[in-house]
Amino acid sequence: MTRVELVYQIKKKNSFLCVGLDSDLKKIPKHLLKSSDPIFEFNKQIIDATIDFCVAYKPNLAFYESLGSKGLESLEKTMEYIPKDIFTIADAKRGDIGNTSGLYARAFFENMAFDAVTVAPYMGADSVKPFLNYDGKWVILLALTSNAGSNDFQNLNIEGSSTKLFEEVLLKSQQWGNTENLMYVVGATKSEKLRKIRQLIPNHFLLVPGVGAQGGSLEDVSKYGMNNDCGLLVNSSRGIIYASSQHDFGAKAGIEAKKIQQQMLLYLKNYL
Amino acid sequence: MTRVELVYQIKKKNSFLCVGLDSDLKKIPKHLLKSSDPIFEFNKQIIDATIDFCVAYKPNLAFYESLGSKGLESLEKTMEYIPKDIFTIADAKRGDIGNTSGLYARAFFENMAFDAVTVAPYMGADSVKPFLNYDGKWVILLALTSNAGSNDFQNLNIEGSSTKLFEEVLLKSQQWGNTENLMYVVGATKSEKLRKIRQLIPNHFLLVPGVGAQGGSLEDVSKYGMNNDCGLLVNSSRGIIYASSQHDFGAKAGIEAKKIQQQMLLYLKNYL
Repeated sequence: MTRVELVYQIKKKNSFLCVGLDSDLKKIPKHLLKSSDPIFEFNKQIIDATIDFCVAYKPNLAFYESLGSKGLESLEKTMEYIPKDIFTIADAKRGDIGNTSGLYARAFFENMAFDAVTVAPYMGADSVKPFLNYDGKWVILLALTSNAGSNDFQNLNIEGSSTKLFEEVLLKSQQWGNTENLMYVVGATKSEKLRKIRQLIPNHFLLVPGVGAQGGSLEDVSKYGMNNDCGLLVNSSRGIIYASSQHDFGAKAGIEAKKIQQQMLLYLKNYL
Repeated sequence: MTRVELVYQIKKKNSFLCVGLDSDLKKIPKHLLKSSDPIFEFNKQIIDATIDFCVAYKPNLAFYESLGSKGLESLEKTMEYIPKDIFTIADAKRGDIGNTSGLYARAFFENMAFDAVTVAPYMGADSVKPFLNYDGKWVILLALTSNAGSNDFQNLNIEGSSTKLFEEVLLKSQQWGNTENLMYVVGATKSEKLRKIRQLIPNHFLLVPGVGAQGGSLEDVSKYGMNNDCGLLVNSSRGIIYASSQHDFGAKAGIEAKKIQQQMLLYLKNYL
């Protein structure tokens, strides 16, 4: 999906919500376990219930890989089920030497037809570039993550510059891709940090986790993170997909997604 | 596999060779494509031919994931086929927030019974620790990789210390694990760099790629990288598994593996 198409969807749906399909056999409603493919059945109903309120789905690969080849089958079926006008993100955090990253790109972009994949920057340019060789496909590069461990390395100051490691990642990677094929994971929900990040990368899209369950403010993210094309995808996983553990889990997920979309509608009006 | 068991295998086989099972449908001998599972058939014959000369196998997950759920099935069968006295490494370069890394750990350690998994450090402590909660299982943390892109971030100087980023990774991560459950990927084949790394982490095992096809010197790695327990696993992939593209590929792989093992025998005598 191109940037123009993504922005069109955001404006059409008045939403920049991404629903994280972190679907876990231990957490989905018990009655689904009787089905032949409980994870796919769960995803299908979540998608049906939320599709009008979000512009993207983001399955985290760990949830599927932890079920072995059967889990990957559930993911493949989920990807076939999601309509093509929804942006799809493989939250895989991959990154390897060039030819190997190329194989991951093949797995996610060609075999499973994802629009985007999250990539870890540690191994540098040649680990990221193979993912940038596809028209209409995106790298979402980890810059600043929202977990406690992000402080261990991402916030280290780099000698001889006034930047932190995650800012080096933002700056250097702009030589590898552009605003049409490169986004960033930015777990910053504090206004000050987001403002600084927007000075470095005014035009790129940001994927923002950590709003909702993890306590970030959607209003602050919208106010300080939005650019002329919206430029934001804000993810919510647990708050939506596990809103109920009963037969009404789909309906409840839809209600939660709609709540967020209604806020987003307001912020798109105020800040876009 | 515990450290004691690994060191026992190294001494028994006079080898610290790891064979990388980077098995690619496009590169394996053509006659195998008629088999119902060509990748597994290839791996099986490579394992049969090399098992006397190596102590570890390292499938890179990208090669299997690029084939979808069928690829993971080939990997699962390969893992069942490898005897338990061989150290197995899932070269996956994973790393995610805590609960998600925990799922990857389940995938590799519980479902597929790998002894070790390679992990990327960018997301910090809580992305690595879930992999360290298993007795007899190992994290192999990316520190200094052997690709060109390793210069982009790993060699940046950190302000206020005299360390580079990869050295920060070595130092900080020692608070998370110990010499019984934590190894490092060190793509340094230069004597000077290896000597410096050994000052920081004298006792940990190192997984060294880039010897052979990528031009590193096995003698230098042995001389400057070995510690009292050997402390080295040196990987070779293409030079062994693709030594021939004909029916004799197994035999040829065995010959190449043995050549390296014979050198290792010598270096174990001289430097251990």
